[in-house]
Amino acid sequence: MMTEAGPQVTRTWTAALLVIGDEILSGRTQDKNIAQVATWLNDQGIRLAEVRVVPDVHERIADAVNALRASHDYLFTTGGIGPTHDDITVDAVAAAFGVAVVVHPEARRILEGWYANRPGGVTEARLRMARVPEGAELIENPSSGAPGVKIGNVYIMAGVPGIAAAMLAGLTGKLEGGRPIVSVTVGARAPESDVADLLRETEAANPGVSIGSYPFFKDGRYGANFVIRSEDGELAASTARSLSDNLREAGFEPVDGGL
Amino acid sequence: MMTEAGPQVTRTWTAALLVIGDEILSGRTQDKNIAQVATWLNDQGIRLAEVRVVPDVHERIADAVNALRASHDYLFTTGGIGPTHDDITVDAVAAAFGVAVVVHPEARRILEGWYANRPGGVTEARLRMARVPEGAELIENPSSGAPGVKIGNVYIMAGVPGIAAAMLAGLTGKLEGGRPIVSVTVGARAPESDVADLLRETEAANPGVSIGSYPFFKDGRYGANFVIRSEDGELAASTARSLSDNLREAGFEPVDGGL
Repeated sequence: MMTEAGPQVTRTWTAALLVIGDEILSGRTQDKNIAQVATWLNDQGIRLAEVRVVPDVHERIADAVNALRASHDYLFTTGGIGPTHDDITVDAVAAAFGVAVVVHPEARRILEGWYANRPGGVTEARLRMARVPEGAELIENPSSGAPGVKIGNVYIMAGVPGIAAAMLAGLTGKLEGGRPIVSVTVGARAPESDVADLLRETEAANPGVSIGSYPFFKDGRYGANFVIRSEDGELAASTARSLSDNLREAGFEPVDGGL
Repeated sequence: MMTEAGPQVTRTWTAALLVIGDEILSGRTQDKNIAQVATWLNDQGIRLAEVRVVPDVHERIADAVNALRASHDYLFTTGGIGPTHDDITVDAVAAAFGVAVVVHPEARRILEGWYANRPGGVTEARLRMARVPEGAELIENPSSGAPGVKIGNVYIMAGVPGIAAAMLAGLTGKLEGGRPIVSVTVGARAPESDVADLLRETEAANPGVSIGSYPFFKDGRYGANFVIRSEDGELAASTARSLSDNLREAGFEPVDGGL
């Protein structure tokens, strides 16, 4: 963003996501958190600018945490905060910050209350989930007791997508961000190679807009969806109209909202 | 791996995957390539050790390519090799290697043949897909004409999962790797926190094995799948039997193959 004086001066807030877990890298588990965190961040006016996936290895997690928290406004992590031996995210984040791991009294109280009347009861393994990097705050988790953890600009969340979603819901509206990105989709039964110039020219004529082209081949015909994205909703809409006009002139019937 | 002398000396081959595309970071598109590439690599005896997702930004792609190709035996990229303005992977990889972008004569021939009798025919935009970093080889692509590209230890592949799959199929068995990782799954209707010690002890008693614990809550009951992974198939199987016995002794009925 430019920083010249004027009423429209904004900054772009960025976040990184660190997905932690052997199960993603082995192909056993299909990640769902990237799309979920991306969509949520967009609504907060924060742009997901990078994702990394690393295995359940202490040094690899700690190194990635330090690289990503330094280069983005926010870092979210998913995975590795359960009660078992392969859950080492809290330890690795603490090491990244150079602080000790301590038991958070409020987290302990939450876990004791949550498990008191549930099968299995309060156990040492479950109370392990009350461990946090020293100086951390808690992120509320209405769905499974064990809270998420915030330290500095790092938000430590569960790997199970439904639990991560609950933690994100608790954070909604609480993070400083810019304007949400507005995206408008226009589709056409056009081979994207036939409209490549048209797309490039439409993007160039509308500074502040990016246009992505997502081709497909279905029912024996080529088609593509063109996604116009901008922080300026008016601009995204007017660019979409302009692209629709250009597509129609080129002989392709545009479909608002995409195919 | 240890490097002491002996007939079982092996090395671990690793790969990184770089997913390129604004559509993944915006949440618009659910990535399918991470799990697909991970599974395929595993069959080749190569471990997926890291994934990064970056936007369609030249410098971000080039920087990630250089970081990841230096730290792994192989680097695979997906996305950004189509005919439109946002397809800049080839240019960014060429910049990372410090070489020019050239038209590959064989790629051009393939594209001309592919599009000759297809709607739209041979166009300048489509021939853009014959551009490669100087010195690159082609990766066969039976599904859509445009070939993948190999330069050094970097394999540039399509972002559309079906096309990436076809390129992977063409590479099957051609990459040097070690032994495939064997994974065996045991499930139980056990809250994972109740078996945390048991898992830790079973893993510690079986060097060369890693055990992952993947909990779920379904039909009002806690359950978890425990995934035993090793390059040694016999060891994975014997560890799975040992874990089953331990679960049964602890009062949880194990389910071979997982729940």
